[in-house]
Amino acid sequence: MTTVAAYAAPAAKAPLERTTIERRAVGEFDVLIDIKYAGICHSDIHQVREGWGEAIFPMVPGHEIAGVVSEVGSGVTKFKVGDRVGVGCMVDSCRTCENCLRGEEQYCLEGNVPTYNGIGKDGEPTYGGYSEKVVVDENFVVRIPDGLSLDVAAPLLCAGITTYSPLRHWNAGPGKKVAIVGLGGLGHMGVKLAHAMGAEVTVLSQSLRKKDDGLKLGADHYYATSDPKTFEELAGTFDLIVSTVSAPMDFGALLSLLKVDGALVNVGAPEEPISLNLFSVIGGRKTLAGSMIGGIAQTQEMLDFCAEHGIGAEIELIRADQINEAYERVLASDVRYRFVIDTATI
Amino acid sequence: MTTVAAYAAPAAKAPLERTTIERRAVGEFDVLIDIKYAGICHSDIHQVREGWGEAIFPMVPGHEIAGVVSEVGSGVTKFKVGDRVGVGCMVDSCRTCENCLRGEEQYCLEGNVPTYNGIGKDGEPTYGGYSEKVVVDENFVVRIPDGLSLDVAAPLLCAGITTYSPLRHWNAGPGKKVAIVGLGGLGHMGVKLAHAMGAEVTVLSQSLRKKDDGLKLGADHYYATSDPKTFEELAGTFDLIVSTVSAPMDFGALLSLLKVDGALVNVGAPEEPISLNLFSVIGGRKTLAGSMIGGIAQTQEMLDFCAEHGIGAEIELIRADQINEAYERVLASDVRYRFVIDTATI
Repeated sequence: MTTVAAYAAPAAKAPLERTTIERRAVGEFDVLIDIKYAGICHSDIHQVREGWGEAIFPMVPGHEIAGVVSEVGSGVTKFKVGDRVGVGCMVDSCRTCENCLRGEEQYCLEGNVPTYNGIGKDGEPTYGGYSEKVVVDENFVVRIPDGLSLDVAAPLLCAGITTYSPLRHWNAGPGKKVAIVGLGGLGHMGVKLAHAMGAEVTVLSQSLRKKDDGLKLGADHYYATSDPKTFEELAGTFDLIVSTVSAPMDFGALLSLLKVDGALVNVGAPEEPISLNLFSVIGGRKTLAGSMIGGIAQTQEMLDFCAEHGIGAEIELIRADQINEAYERVLASDVRYRFVIDTATI
Repeated sequence: MTTVAAYAAPAAKAPLERTTIERRAVGEFDVLIDIKYAGICHSDIHQVREGWGEAIFPMVPGHEIAGVVSEVGSGVTKFKVGDRVGVGCMVDSCRTCENCLRGEEQYCLEGNVPTYNGIGKDGEPTYGGYSEKVVVDENFVVRIPDGLSLDVAAPLLCAGITTYSPLRHWNAGPGKKVAIVGLGGLGHMGVKLAHAMGAEVTVLSQSLRKKDDGLKLGADHYYATSDPKTFEELAGTFDLIVSTVSAPMDFGALLSLLKVDGALVNVGAPEEPISLNLFSVIGGRKTLAGSMIGGIAQTQEMLDFCAEHGIGAEIELIRADQINEAYERVLASDVRYRFVIDTATI
């Protein structure tokens, strides 16, 4: 066991404060990681505030972890001390169900072990990346290629893979028209990735406020969803729409922007049920789907892709004592485009 | 122009009565068909009663047409007098849009010309199959193989292709677990077709009332959706669910029956919007989709498939003067499984 400093919410909705937590001893297949950077994901806030149901406290959030290996277990073969590595939203799974066996551990039939706000196989609560160190089984650790700085790589572990995975699954690429709904933490990664894959990229944002940014990030077009003309002009345009928004939206209107056989994939989701007229999908064999992060192998593929294309997140680096303020700014959409905690300040 | 006898609704919600209509002269690429049988589809009733919005009256419903060619235009190459043929839900389309060009005329960007309750390219209202004869461009006529009786073939033109198309599109076949929701006109065809494709077929019906029928039609399993245990037992089971039901349902519960990457495809649809929690699709990369009939080439493929596998609809043959009574029985789900009008009785 090692005692490490961390930032934790002691109870639901409480501000995060500095504390210490215990990390397990490094086991045979474990990697000890000195965390250098941890991204702040909107879902950290959802969980701290129990927006998604009852949670485990104290909670150390953080599932966008970038760091350096400082110790490895005797059975570890994939990593050595000094390797630059990342950890995303999960730190274990059953490894034997049909989904785990095909590398889709995020959909483990037993439920994967989330990086925080979960219970590990040792029966202990898991604690996330807002801390100095973490111990993770090597099979749930990925390599951060040399070409990527650790600070801009951290958000790739959730925001990157969450958008990369559906773009790959639904074949974004040359000749395909892809729309990204919402230009926040997830959305800005979606734009960069879809552009790098060769797709023609359109941002659909509530307003044109971030238009200049969107175009710089790689979007070919930028439209405001608050303007009804957008829906006239773009009717039947897209092969794929990836929605990163968790606010309620008019899903019928979004579906009307798809071509026949097009897909609207939600990676953000309103907490409340949506209302949908099924004729929106019947008249054009359209798909309304969802997608959740990605498997470990695909997360590695995504990092390699990002290194090859020089893609990192756009970040605002903060000190640990700014976390609570950062949460408020995330909720106010006042971040371009991801807060990353310099964990040296914990 | 030819005057032919037909059954028509003179106004919205009015009973159908015998009348006469004019059929256009046989043009260069037209086929004149002596209609022998016409199926009664639930959507005939929706349209007669303006459940789907304002309609054109008088209305001669009927888009499940089986008959024999009695005259062909000078340019017709695909059919000759005496051929056994069918006509389904559409009688024309733009033929030049991207969807028409890839044989998906049902999704014509200009809107296809429906067999009835539409306006033809000549600017005249279209009239459907509850009549003695119909004139149709040869490109929207399909061949009914010798092995299929015309009476049981008629419903294939809508109920058959509507279920065949999504089963093919979402790869029903050996090793796949397919559920059909609802055992009515569409559902009973879905069971026969999915079984013939080699899938393991489960019927999900409100009750077990038609269980014996379902198993005879080819289902391997039969469950009642009114029993909560069904949803426990079948959680995460299916690769594909085809819902033929137009009553409101718990779509979250249905989605929970899908495997990761599974699809719930709606070919029936409630008139009212449904309520859906998007987490139902996110946690398993699931698809909620729709599908509408099928293209002309696929309709022919479906008829050939049915002939090869000895598949026709289960029908109750009626006289034309029983149409109004039949409508009431369809609404009461009192038909096993499709009414077919013997048009000789018109």
